[in-house]
Amino acid sequence: MKPARHRKDRVVLDTSLFVNPDVRSAFGGSPTEAIKEFLVIARKIPALEFYMPSSIFKELLNFVDQRELPGSLLAVLHQKAPSKHEMTCPAFFLYELIDDIRDRINKGLRIAEKAVRSAGKVDERELIQNMRKSYREALREGIIDSAEDVDLILLAKELDALLVTVDHGAITWAEKLGIRWLLPGKFKDYLLSFIQDGQSAPS
Amino acid sequence: MKPARHRKDRVVLDTSLFVNPDVRSAFGGSPTEAIKEFLVIARKIPALEFYMPSSIFKELLNFVDQRELPGSLLAVLHQKAPSKHEMTCPAFFLYELIDDIRDRINKGLRIAEKAVRSAGKVDERELIQNMRKSYREALREGIIDSAEDVDLILLAKELDALLVTVDHGAITWAEKLGIRWLLPGKFKDYLLSFIQDGQSAPS
Repeated sequence: MKPARHRKDRVVLDTSLFVNPDVRSAFGGSPTEAIKEFLVIARKIPALEFYMPSSIFKELLNFVDQRELPGSLLAVLHQKAPSKHEMTCPAFFLYELIDDIRDRINKGLRIAEKAVRSAGKVDERELIQNMRKSYREALREGIIDSAEDVDLILLAKELDALLVTVDHGAITWAEKLGIRWLLPGKFKDYLLSFIQDGQSAPS
Repeated sequence: MKPARHRKDRVVLDTSLFVNPDVRSAFGGSPTEAIKEFLVIARKIPALEFYMPSSIFKELLNFVDQRELPGSLLAVLHQKAPSKHEMTCPAFFLYELIDDIRDRINKGLRIAEKAVRSAGKVDERELIQNMRKSYREALREGIIDSAEDVDLILLAKELDALLVTVDHGAITWAEKLGIRWLLPGKFKDYLLSFIQDGQSAPS
């Protein structure tokens, strides 16, 4: 059982909710449509506050038709960067991050060696393309590898918020830091449960 | 000017002080000799306390003749792991680490691509050896890339100690965290200044 909350519960959103076609389909056919539909629902839920890191919000604006966005967007979806100069993270986090990166660096080298050994046997352009793909998968998937990823998890931590993302790296580190998270595919149902329950938190 | 210190000043040592032939020469011709000479000097300086992370101490034992080590070693050079489950690090540290790693990952891929393009033109074995060297330099030099490196900087931070190391990665991050550091080449002079000043801290 959770202790009773005396303030609004907070939710931190990643762009994938609106941008990734697989996950936004519940909300709309385009990023702009998905945002509009989200706003219609979100405004009916006074029990929740919605946030997006400013860096992620900037990314989102590249995918939408800004003239079509309702004025209520900025009132409902708050932009906020984490307080990165005041916040701290547990030191063991560093050990795990460096351990993970070290493994990935070794994996990257093995992929490069394999590609060099295959050179001459297959088409060079194709070989390099495949190597790039394997290398990026090995070194970047499932790890927080950008300032935007760090913004997401730190903001969720700072606000004690629910994190809504499909990013495996962000989810992995959310787990390590005790941050609640939800896959965007379940998010519309989650929101609707607040409305059906008459604004109270779902039991 | 530093504020007056009311407790012993602390020093955290890396293995390089005893193991790296270039830097240990002031202390002795072999790691074992260097440790013995260090102990002779260190015992004359009650104003300083010496520490080494347990993980680094274990590494050191691989380089020395343990039967020849004086019993005073463990009394003078304290082994201590950092309190990694209680300590925290500033969140901006994460941003800088991830930014640094991201650049290095891209650099590693460019090195791999260059090697694939050179395949067939030069000896494969030599090509792979050179690629490994460039790759490791690009991805690992100047970065904290092992648990032992993290131990070093966190222990120095925890103890508010002077860090004695040649590791570029550790020095870079010591700077970010406001940790004092000294190159081992200057360390014998540093120690002797305490003895010449009659046990008081150098002015």
